[in-house]
Amino acid sequence: MKKANKKVNAAIIIIGNEILSGRTQDINVSFLAKWLNNLGIRVSEVRIIEDNEEIIINTIKEVKNNFKYVFTTGGIGPTHDDITSKSIAKAFNLSCGYHKEAYDILEKYYKPGEFNEGRKKMAKIPDQAELIYNPSSGAPGFIIENIFCLPGVPSILKSIVEGLKNKIIGGKKILSKTISVSTVESEIAKSLEDIQNKFKNIEIGSYPFFRLGKIGVSIVMRSTEPEQIKDCAKQIQNFIKRKKIKILDRKN
Amino acid sequence: MKKANKKVNAAIIIIGNEILSGRTQDINVSFLAKWLNNLGIRVSEVRIIEDNEEIIINTIKEVKNNFKYVFTTGGIGPTHDDITSKSIAKAFNLSCGYHKEAYDILEKYYKPGEFNEGRKKMAKIPDQAELIYNPSSGAPGFIIENIFCLPGVPSILKSIVEGLKNKIIGGKKILSKTISVSTVESEIAKSLEDIQNKFKNIEIGSYPFFRLGKIGVSIVMRSTEPEQIKDCAKQIQNFIKRKKIKILDRKN
Repeated sequence: MKKANKKVNAAIIIIGNEILSGRTQDINVSFLAKWLNNLGIRVSEVRIIEDNEEIIINTIKEVKNNFKYVFTTGGIGPTHDDITSKSIAKAFNLSCGYHKEAYDILEKYYKPGEFNEGRKKMAKIPDQAELIYNPSSGAPGFIIENIFCLPGVPSILKSIVEGLKNKIIGGKKILSKTISVSTVESEIAKSLEDIQNKFKNIEIGSYPFFRLGKIGVSIVMRSTEPEQIKDCAKQIQNFIKRKKIKILDRKN
Repeated sequence: MKKANKKVNAAIIIIGNEILSGRTQDINVSFLAKWLNNLGIRVSEVRIIEDNEEIIINTIKEVKNNFKYVFTTGGIGPTHDDITSKSIAKAFNLSCGYHKEAYDILEKYYKPGEFNEGRKKMAKIPDQAELIYNPSSGAPGFIIENIFCLPGVPSILKSIVEGLKNKIIGGKKILSKTISVSTVESEIAKSLEDIQNKFKNIEIGSYPFFRLGKIGVSIVMRSTEPEQIKDCAKQIQNFIKRKKIKILDRKN
């Protein structure tokens, strides 16, 4: 598959049967995507895959070449269904014994006598992995080449990413502007398409909504070019005005 | 990639830049996964991809052979960023003009004079597609081979799937049982692994949580075999009792 664009892109791989079964509502994609946007990195693909070694290995081998960065979440805990570390190790032909630095961190983190087998498992991290420190629960994430392995628990994920900023080189920040209007999509489809054709550097999305019993459409512009977003927004507002459509709100 | 298992499986393809940018929190995966579980269909993979013709075509060509059913959501509306129908048509080398039945449905749905160009676009559906009727907003979804193309707006998606039941042949219903306990994962990791090794037909997941300031673990069993789930739950409850861990709740 071709790269989605020439800008800095990323894929997110959510590893976890609990998301695929519908039991757990994923919220990590939205958090990570917004966090990465701020660093100038565009999430171009997300996959949610099973806790299955072969599937994890094949997925990682495929995506690592297609995206500048790959972020995995989930499967680095202490239980039998946590198989991300050993699977990633296999994808890179690395061994996956106790990682000395991770072992030391965890040994210090727990009280004497509490560093049991389950917890020791979290120190089994691929050889040569660079660690990602975890301020909220001790067990580190890790980096192998362009793969960043992060925890699945949202609160822990949020605390761990702050330590990542100096390990990632982003592009130009991705800006967005939203104009929400009181109409239906079909009323503005033609005008929006004409504007999209004029602004090739701007991605214009149109999203209908039903909010507090009212229908409307959010028109979203995304681009790394602030001046072009401004021009584009102006043209959109012009045709909205011409069509006598009410603007409900504007958001950056 | 190998099939995840021999049971009836499915992939969900979420088509939409708004999910990848983090702007919109997807809730369709969880809804569809639970709905399919009840029909005995296991969601084995989810992909979230961009509104990009080449990417949609390549993704569909790849997944259609790996899964019994593929459900797409999003991109079948009236605006320029809705390119699912024409992309799917190209993936199957079909043309994508006005679909007579869809055109008739939409023409009847709108008041005279309101069936404008934008709305007519929603009748552009691949030749030979079977329609999926839409009780809430007129515009139909469609089926090509094993690909089911559904709308992205969650309320419309929910209303449309009911019409799908007789078009899908599921397997044995996937049952689950959850036991939530007041402990940390590392305390139960070894015992759970031993039980997982005994029950090959049951998928046991372990999910830590922080709820109302309390920590705990939800142990989730999933299987098509009710008797085995019962036996497995019994063994889990035995070791929980032996370890003097408090059970917080049980759920089917």
